[in-house]
Amino acid sequence: MRLHLSTWQEVEAYLQRSQGLVIPIGSTEQHGPTGLIGTDAICAEAISQGVGEAAQALVAPTINVGMALHHTAFPGTVSLRPSTLMLVIRDYVTSLVRAGFTKFFFINGHGGNVATLKAAFSECYQVLADLNLLNADRVQCHVANWYMCSSVYKLAQELYGNQEGSHATPSEVALTQYVYPDAIKQAPLSPEVPSGEPIYGAIDFRRRYPDGRMGSNPALATPEHGKQFYDLAVKELTSRYLEFLSRE
Amino acid sequence: MRLHLSTWQEVEAYLQRSQGLVIPIGSTEQHGPTGLIGTDAICAEAISQGVGEAAQALVAPTINVGMALHHTAFPGTVSLRPSTLMLVIRDYVTSLVRAGFTKFFFINGHGGNVATLKAAFSECYQVLADLNLLNADRVQCHVANWYMCSSVYKLAQELYGNQEGSHATPSEVALTQYVYPDAIKQAPLSPEVPSGEPIYGAIDFRRRYPDGRMGSNPALATPEHGKQFYDLAVKELTSRYLEFLSRE
Amino acid sequence: MRLHLSTWQEVEAYLQRSQGLVIPIGSTEQHGPTGLIGTDAICAEAISQGVGEAAQALVAPTINVGMALHHTAFPGTVSLRPSTLMLVIRDYVTSLVRAGFTKFFFINGHGGNVATLKAAFSECYQVLADLNLLNADRVQCHVANWYMCSSVYKLAQELYGNQEGSHATPSEVALTQYVYPDAIKQAPLSPEVPSGEPIYGAIDFRRRYPDGRMGSNPALATPEHGKQFYDLAVKELTSRYLEFLSRE
Amino acid sequence: MRLHLSTWQEVEAYLQRSQGLVIPIGSTEQHGPTGLIGTDAICAEAISQGVGEAAQALVAPTINVGMALHHTAFPGTVSLRPSTLMLVIRDYVTSLVRAGFTKFFFINGHGGNVATLKAAFSECYQVLADLNLLNADRVQCHVANWYMCSSVYKLAQELYGNQEGSHATPSEVALTQYVYPDAIKQAPLSPEVPSGEPIYGAIDFRRRYPDGRMGSNPALATPEHGKQFYDLAVKELTSRYLEFLSRE
Amino acid sequence: MRLHLSTWQEVEAYLQRSQGLVIPIGSTEQHGPTGLIGTDAICAEAISQGVGEAAQALVAPTINVGMALHHTAFPGTVSLRPSTLMLVIRDYVTSLVRAGFTKFFFINGHGGNVATLKAAFSECYQVLADLNLLNADRVQCHVANWYMCSSVYKLAQELYGNQEGSHATPSEVALTQYVYPDAIKQAPLSPEVPSGEPIYGAIDFRRRYPDGRMGSNPALATPEHGKQFYDLAVKELTSRYLEFLSRE
Amino acid sequence: MRLHLSTWQEVEAYLQRSQGLVIPIGSTEQHGPTGLIGTDAICAEAISQGVGEAAQALVAPTINVGMALHHTAFPGTVSLRPSTLMLVIRDYVTSLVRAGFTKFFFINGHGGNVATLKAAFSECYQVLADLNLLNADRVQCHVANWYMCSSVYKLAQELYGNQEGSHATPSEVALTQYVYPDAIKQAPLSPEVPSGEPIYGAIDFRRRYPDGRMGSNPALATPEHGKQFYDLAVKELTSRYLEFLSRE
Repeated sequence: MRLHLSTWQEVEAYLQRSQGLVIPIGSTEQHGPTGLIGTDAICAEAISQGVGEAAQALVAPTINVGMALHHTAFPGTVSLRPSTLMLVIRDYVTSLVRAGFTKFFFINGHGGNVATLKAAFSECYQVLADLNLLNADRVQCHVANWYMCSSVYKLAQELYGNQEGSHATPSEVALTQYVYPDAIKQAPLSPEVPSGEPIYGAIDFRRRYPDGRMGSNPALATPEHGKQFYDLAVKELTSRYLEFLSRE
Repeated sequence: MRLHLSTWQEVEAYLQRSQGLVIPIGSTEQHGPTGLIGTDAICAEAISQGVGEAAQALVAPTINVGMALHHTAFPGTVSLRPSTLMLVIRDYVTSLVRAGFTKFFFINGHGGNVATLKAAFSECYQVLADLNLLNADRVQCHVANWYMCSSVYKLAQELYGNQEGSHATPSEVALTQYVYPDAIKQAPLSPEVPSGEPIYGAIDFRRRYPDGRMGSNPALATPEHGKQFYDLAVKELTSRYLEFLSRE
Repeated sequence: MRLHLSTWQEVEAYLQRSQGLVIPIGSTEQHGPTGLIGTDAICAEAISQGVGEAAQALVAPTINVGMALHHTAFPGTVSLRPSTLMLVIRDYVTSLVRAGFTKFFFINGHGGNVATLKAAFSECYQVLADLNLLNADRVQCHVANWYMCSSVYKLAQELYGNQEGSHATPSEVALTQYVYPDAIKQAPLSPEVPSGEPIYGAIDFRRRYPDGRMGSNPALATPEHGKQFYDLAVKELTSRYLEFLSRE
Repeated sequence: MRLHLSTWQEVEAYLQRSQGLVIPIGSTEQHGPTGLIGTDAICAEAISQGVGEAAQALVAPTINVGMALHHTAFPGTVSLRPSTLMLVIRDYVTSLVRAGFTKFFFINGHGGNVATLKAAFSECYQVLADLNLLNADRVQCHVANWYMCSSVYKLAQELYGNQEGSHATPSEVALTQYVYPDAIKQAPLSPEVPSGEPIYGAIDFRRRYPDGRMGSNPALATPEHGKQFYDLAVKELTSRYLEFLSRE
Repeated sequence: MRLHLSTWQEVEAYLQRSQGLVIPIGSTEQHGPTGLIGTDAICAEAISQGVGEAAQALVAPTINVGMALHHTAFPGTVSLRPSTLMLVIRDYVTSLVRAGFTKFFFINGHGGNVATLKAAFSECYQVLADLNLLNADRVQCHVANWYMCSSVYKLAQELYGNQEGSHATPSEVALTQYVYPDAIKQAPLSPEVPSGEPIYGAIDFRRRYPDGRMGSNPALATPEHGKQFYDLAVKELTSRYLEFLSRE
Repeated sequence: MRLHLSTWQEVEAYLQRSQGLVIPIGSTEQHGPTGLIGTDAICAEAISQGVGEAAQALVAPTINVGMALHHTAFPGTVSLRPSTLMLVIRDYVTSLVRAGFTKFFFINGHGGNVATLKAAFSECYQVLADLNLLNADRVQCHVANWYMCSSVYKLAQELYGNQEGSHATPSEVALTQYVYPDAIKQAPLSPEVPSGEPIYGAIDFRRRYPDGRMGSNPALATPEHGKQFYDLAVKELTSRYLEFLSRE
């Protein structure tokens, strides 16, 4: 069930049986010479819809732009500042808690979002208490990073070993190839790619990682791999979502 | 061209020939008993992609959640506060101006966004000047509301007369039926629907408009109408976008 | 009745019979070579006091500085950023709702304020709900632009035709001449004045409109015209205010 | 010279000879049973215009609403929060520094504004430095409280002794009587009025000072006294303004 | 009793007998060639702990960094902006009011903090009312500047006369020498030191006060003096704290 | 070297040889029936000073209050909201970068600070770029959690096994016992203590963890253990700091 394809009366009925919501969150940022700028949003959205179907869960529209300030020295990147993203999360959650939702399961496609999301959750719990909203003290937010699912991680190691890297990885590229087979890109990739460097500001990032990749070889990706990653992530996150729902 | 399906190197190349960007902005809000909660985002996104193809323009990911505070007494609505949406627009625009974009054409599907967008544009111009960004004084933001295209408005009057109303209108519902024919909804609609009431807070809104419609009869919508609206809006907005680009 | 010339006990008594308040809002911005920098505030204040007398309404002190960022490349302009003006409106409204006011009628003299005011109203309704203030869901804010009164508009067309323009107009200059006959200014006005250009940032604005006028010929203004505009605006807005008060 | 009665070209000419500006700041707050709600703004504005004439200084429009949160339990009070007032001051100052002003002389009518103004000044200096504005490091803001002029204080002691009190004082009431002789109010005043209590929140304030006066007997005020206070304040502040201008 | 050396159960017990808290607030800023950067925090902390012992009062951890923007042209200074410090105070106070504290006694070591603290207190009272916290209208904040104790001031005059100055004063330097005898510094001090200049921005401050001192001769300080100042301040502030607690 | 015990001229000299700074950050929060409220600040401060001595590094004053919103249902806890803490970090870093510091090594004692710190770092890099500060693109912030040092973790496992838990742990309690042997607390500890529960809002936290401990048995702590932890942490973090400094 997608929130955007539902009516308010359907949502009202849904809330009778569940107070859970899946919220995909991605990013709009460079993913190396062959990775799509929407990679993180595309992956999060596809997997969220899979989880939504498997778990009979409502799925919110995707948060397409996240915290990607360190990628902004590459054209095409769009980023919220952490402080802005925190306000966005606050507004989503308060809108939805007013309606009766209490369990927010963010399926995340971008490592750069995690710290801000966690800070936002803390801020939200306080805001909800301050607003004296009904059930404020029962609200739970959880971030699930699909790329850190143990099954996904294991497959990526098997398929790519240390060529998986940590940004513009073949696993995420593969997943976008599965979702958008018409948008598979080709571009020359230098065989040597830096890895393991720390991440600071945007200029510094591009100096360290000139083509945007972090230790990865996305040329290894195939749409078939993408389907495997998709299936594994949907399965593992469906299970985790259901457990989250059932948890007190 | 969709930004999300491009690589940063493709964006770099695009910027050599154009500094324009189409940004769809919608809302996540009740649209009466049969309208989809994502109506405004769905319409803005579909038309934006049509314009993008017709005008060879890059299209940003859709801003799915806008300013819909007055709809938040209906479950399923998600809204940013105006102050939050202004920060979001600011962050989008500053990220993109750094990369070289200067012409931002927002295709908007929701009347409730307009005031906040205009306020945000004013704030942005000042921020860009404060940041001393190159070309700050050449940046232009424009909001184009597809539902106010003269051709669209004319067709809606012909097809629906005063049953078009002003929210959950048959024209926008038709467009979503064209885009998502599998998500056409049926629900009883009271024949009498209030119209012409002013809009204040959320509780007040629901008191005035109990099922969410404002003077509309969305039962008149058909997917075929939707295609007509789509074609008209794409044509008119493509032309307006090209004129916007060429304007000094 | 002017709030500033009342005591708190008089306000307490007033609230027994009315919960309405007229709030004049103007701007402090260039108005061409002969228009006063205070034009928008002067007009809004004078008309508001006229409405206050005619409608037995309390009139707040004038918000003298509004949203005029696009005029800041001309010396003498003072502007709030939209985000600041929104906070100002929020603070006014929350202070006054605590005391029992629920109907806020802003008489506005500056087009550049409108979007921000409307965004501010939306934000206010939510803030009031969040604060759990008594009658929060009955609070209504309305912006009435005196220069858009149909009677005013008609007279301006009759007197000035297309020399009315859209900034530093003879109608608003005339009104200030009526209010401050000792401050009528003379300065050379180039016969050709640009018009119809869009409005973006401050530098861009001055490039497009070098002397500050937008398509207007303020040399046509006379204090006698000013009185006519004043009378028409007071009459029309008094009527609109009373209707606003009586509306549920 | 009043900024509101000037044109931008007159301001441009003024800046050739002076970079100083007088800014009146008052408050909109209860002043006991007989004091006007606008007392602090009225006094600040009248004195500022007197100083403007005497010193050939430009006078900005009055900031009518200040920091009066502790008075908000009395109807008619309107207050900005300190954080909002700081943003207002910031926006005024940055607008004006861009135009070339560097010396800001705030003539203040309300003790409750002082701390916030001083905090705002500190914030402003940093903002100006951050914006790299020309002359940022030469900008000076000064707050001059008319009621603390030594000549004013001395006269108040002579005329009223300890019946001057500290809020809704006969001296400030007298000054408003001089400016608005038609708005002199009569109301019963309890002979006993608390004084010397500390100031915390709004509810607490009203509990301590039930009719709004703080140790004062405004029944002693006369318009003639008002003229005396006016003359003394204008003289003393003109001198202080000129010294401020000449100071490096 | 120091909050940091207590358990939450001890605090719970303390709240049964007292709702008061001593909060030391200092600054991290240059104090001339021989004054410690931590001078203001060191003095506030030492005196607070003395008061805590004498008055059986709980003492919060020290706010080490205050509002010192005007000192930031000297290396080693760290400053919050006034707007940030206000949020810090707000967060402290709301956290503590939720637990039952109502009397906040800030022992302050830095003149630059005073305006911001007072503005923050006003903002806090409103926030507490907005949050509907229990006892919100009984909360009282007080700032006590140790260097303005009459006994301290008197001794400083006796010991140093006009060589006390107003920043990097021998009295505060003496107190830090008493607390940290191992950190007594020697450096050449120019015999002539400017004094009486106003304070604006950071660059301007350093231009006026090149070595950071304002009219002071800290070479007169001794640890023995420091002990005297410490004893006087603790005694006077203990008495003032107890009076504050007992006040309705 | 402690910043608070230095003069500005010493800092100026230090900056000639190093641009690094150690910043201890803790929290003010409940640590179970026997743990000190200041535990996290005490540990971070002590270890930072040890690192400062070993590495000849300057050590900033301790950030005593961090992000502990989830502990605020226990009296004595003081917390900044994440958004406030981010502003504090921003103000620290911008003050210090202006003076020439570029390498910020936060030694952290509280898990709840980590997400907010990381979000704050991202925001800072952008702010520094926006301010066009010299070396903005060379600034690096790093958070080092002493309790996650591998040597510390290993010892905790050896000494306490699964009784280490994750809050109010014997290892951190031991370290405070070593630093403040006079503040060792005794209180009955229920043998059963919940562990492994997720963390959401404050009320929820206390419901899950009634005495504040998370799976820990702090009764196992001794001052001798504390010394061991201290030595290990200082050694490991000194080494990490030096590597951080030397890293490009």
